[in-house]
Amino acid sequence: VGPRALQALEAAGIDAWMAAQSSPGRSVAVVLRRAQATRAEEVLRRELAPELERGALQPPQVRAPVTQVALVAEAMGQGANVAGRLFQPLGALGINVRAIAQTASARSISFIVDGAETALTVRTVHAAFHFAHEEVSLLVLGHGVVGSQLLEQLRALQQTLAQEHGIQLNLVGLADSRRVLFSPEGIPLNQWRERIEAVPEGTSPPVVQALLESLRRLPVPVLVDCTAADGMEELYLEAFRGGIHVVAANKKPLTQPREVWERLRSTAHLNHRAYHYETTVGAGLPVIQTLKDLVRTGDRVHGVEGSFSGTLGYLSQQLMDGVPLSRAVRTAREKGFTEPHPREDLGGTDAARKALILAREQGLDLAMEDVEVEPFVPREYLEEEDVERFLTGLEKLDRTFTSRIEGLRAEGKVLRYLARIDPAAKDGPVLRVGPVAVAKDHPATRLRGSEAFVAFSTERYADYPLLVQGAGAGGPVTAAGVLADILKIAQGLRGR
Amino acid sequence: VGPRALQALEAAGIDAWMAAQSSPGRSVAVVLRRAQATRAEEVLRRELAPELERGALQPPQVRAPVTQVALVAEAMGQGANVAGRLFQPLGALGINVRAIAQTASARSISFIVDGAETALTVRTVHAAFHFAHEEVSLLVLGHGVVGSQLLEQLRALQQTLAQEHGIQLNLVGLADSRRVLFSPEGIPLNQWRERIEAVPEGTSPPVVQALLESLRRLPVPVLVDCTAADGMEELYLEAFRGGIHVVAANKKPLTQPREVWERLRSTAHLNHRAYHYETTVGAGLPVIQTLKDLVRTGDRVHGVEGSFSGTLGYLSQQLMDGVPLSRAVRTAREKGFTEPHPREDLGGTDAARKALILAREQGLDLAMEDVEVEPFVPREYLEEEDVERFLTGLEKLDRTFTSRIEGLRAEGKVLRYLARIDPAAKDGPVLRVGPVAVAKDHPATRLRGSEAFVAFSTERYADYPLLVQGAGAGGPVTAAGVLADILKIAQGLRGR
Repeated sequence: VGPRALQALEAAGIDAWMAAQSSPGRSVAVVLRRAQATRAEEVLRRELAPELERGALQPPQVRAPVTQVALVAEAMGQGANVAGRLFQPLGALGINVRAIAQTASARSISFIVDGAETALTVRTVHAAFHFAHEEVSLLVLGHGVVGSQLLEQLRALQQTLAQEHGIQLNLVGLADSRRVLFSPEGIPLNQWRERIEAVPEGTSPPVVQALLESLRRLPVPVLVDCTAADGMEELYLEAFRGGIHVVAANKKPLTQPREVWERLRSTAHLNHRAYHYETTVGAGLPVIQTLKDLVRTGDRVHGVEGSFSGTLGYLSQQLMDGVPLSRAVRTAREKGFTEPHPREDLGGTDAARKALILAREQGLDLAMEDVEVEPFVPREYLEEEDVERFLTGLEKLDRTFTSRIEGLRAEGKVLRYLARIDPAAKDGPVLRVGPVAVAKDHPATRLRGSEAFVAFSTERYADYPLLVQGAGAGGPVTAAGVLADILKIAQGLRGR
Repeated sequence: VGPRALQALEAAGIDAWMAAQSSPGRSVAVVLRRAQATRAEEVLRRELAPELERGALQPPQVRAPVTQVALVAEAMGQGANVAGRLFQPLGALGINVRAIAQTASARSISFIVDGAETALTVRTVHAAFHFAHEEVSLLVLGHGVVGSQLLEQLRALQQTLAQEHGIQLNLVGLADSRRVLFSPEGIPLNQWRERIEAVPEGTSPPVVQALLESLRRLPVPVLVDCTAADGMEELYLEAFRGGIHVVAANKKPLTQPREVWERLRSTAHLNHRAYHYETTVGAGLPVIQTLKDLVRTGDRVHGVEGSFSGTLGYLSQQLMDGVPLSRAVRTAREKGFTEPHPREDLGGTDAARKALILAREQGLDLAMEDVEVEPFVPREYLEEEDVERFLTGLEKLDRTFTSRIEGLRAEGKVLRYLARIDPAAKDGPVLRVGPVAVAKDHPATRLRGSEAFVAFSTERYADYPLLVQGAGAGGPVTAAGVLADILKIAQGLRGR
């Protein structure tokens, strides 16, 4: 049937630009000028009338408009893997290839896509054969302390990364709680602030969901969450399903009820997407990846201990230095070390979130309500809504704290605010966050300022726990950690 | 020409199993029964005689035997990306696809490969569409302390990794300095020792090079170097060129002259292959990756300080505890903490290698001869070949060391053997390895046993250096680090 059909078209003066026949005699695809489509259909119906009448053939179908893309190589068939490099990214973007024809001698390959996909196809093909750079498309949410530092680091590094590592990081979108900026061509990194400020503010939070459909059609799309917003888990899930990677400094999605956490992980896994969140614990310090590696290589975690709150670390040290509690908190707030209302820090919730993230990472089935949180000050003090009254109220605690500190000093101990995970406690795993009096030789005694530390005691690190310590908060180190997570995705693609 | 050619073949009773014509009228490929090849050639030469005579056509060429592979999908053209999943791995293995035909309506795709590639093609296609597991093929060199632990960890984890992470790690080869075992079907991990011991010993080191050609045709091939052998850099280069990843615990290739180091990195980079060597410094501790992340994210390293020699750390501590030098060395040797001849450790070369690896990782153009090494004992003592005479000779140093230690103790200082990198020294970067008297508040004073530590002082970690500490030597932690490097490759492939 195939040859007869082609012959009939030729006889009618209709040029077939491309023809493909797969499986003997079962089906034929022909590409021709759109103006000739109706005429071609007539010719084929006439030529194949007998077969059509007895139902041996399905009537010819016309798909229009379509675009034929032809690649001619210098040396095809020489291991250049043209077909793979061509169709892998097209398929990943959901572009349907309607027909393919390749012959060895012609050193060419032709294929057909729907006309609407032309621009995306051409861009993708160019990217596929322009091997110099691995392009990554970033949609950044939030440009506060972490987000703005990230954009600054991107600006400073963009050229070096392209030249030395072959990674082209493009900022294609930026959003905050009131505005959205999206530009597939890329937002110049030295103008992001002017550009986002020029966007008129919306009255309600912008719908980022709508952007994902555009983002997913760009090369290696990554959603970068530098916010501390609630409810982002739904957005992540949609991103994973759409083929978008997620890098997040946001702790909250990881501390949702267990089933949400499971869904995030399994959806990322099923869609082969990365979900990196190294900075949610200890900022730029290598904490999550270290724990992941321990667990994946079959080590057994006997216990984890850490200090993750820079604010509470600072307060502990001030108290040890003899500063009264109320004054220490007031100073910390003035220096910008605390949230606007210091009770957010003194309550211990942030430290509890980080401890939960680590506990889940080692496979423990725990949730926020399982974390035993002892606040830095008695819970009833945290109920005061008014900041000034709250600070004044703390004065009532000064004497208690001072005598407690004196007692510790007499014992040669030091006050610290620690998180402890005991996976093998008698009545099930225990996750505890609170003030602890530690002995002088404990690693936590050496912490200064906003320093964080984590110690993993495991089967293999039994005598000497694996310890990571260093600045565990702040814009620059957190942003660098986010950037490292982004680079992990880019480099995974190149197999490095 | 295409339709006429096909028509002529049909008229001659020759069935075309598959036909592809790409670019209008330029070239046609037809697949037919081998027995009909000569007849088909005659038919075509006759039919196309006019064009052939005036040189408008090239004579038909016959390629035989070839294999036609046909895939019929339930729902092709529905974003299943069949072509990409199909041709990407085929191309990666160097299998030439001679012709392709795909039509949308038929939901099928047919392609042609040389007959000799049939088995590999079928296996690859099966792997490509069996998405449950990412298969990794491991050729392990060396089964000493690290290698045997790695094989044991692989055995214990193989099932979990497959079930929970979708990663199938196959041991396809194992070699030591005298024997080679290679089995593409996989060597059972509970029998590796019997299997390698059953291989007759060669008289010269086995030629591993020859295995690479077989290894590279297996899914995700990885060469795992658990030896401390010299000259492995040539093997790595050949591996990279052949599309094989390298994971190495072997420090030596990284401490070769600068141009060798450059070639290793650029060859891996150009071939998009991974070269992971986390365990060359600090065993399983996250040292290399941490430094890589700092540098890549644009941080500036102001200084690096570390203690990497478990042996010299142990000796330092013994001396501080009042044990005479000669006795401390003798005990360490008896406990297996030193090389057979302790001068290998006391000379400081191993610590120097690790320091050089870190220095190069931060971009410093240094070589082994640039490392200022001060041995643990004066250099003239290291010349003694005989172990017993060497140990006796050290007694002459006992008094010197004892009084030196007493002096340190009086100053409140502690003896440690440290590596220090100062990238911005006045007369160019300085790399120094040797005994150092450190103050009581220095992190190195807290080291016990074989513990290692490294502290990175950087622009972003200026006030509080990024510090990693823990067991820095030993089979289990080193093997786990090697395994983590292997898993990084496997996971990069899945985009996680």
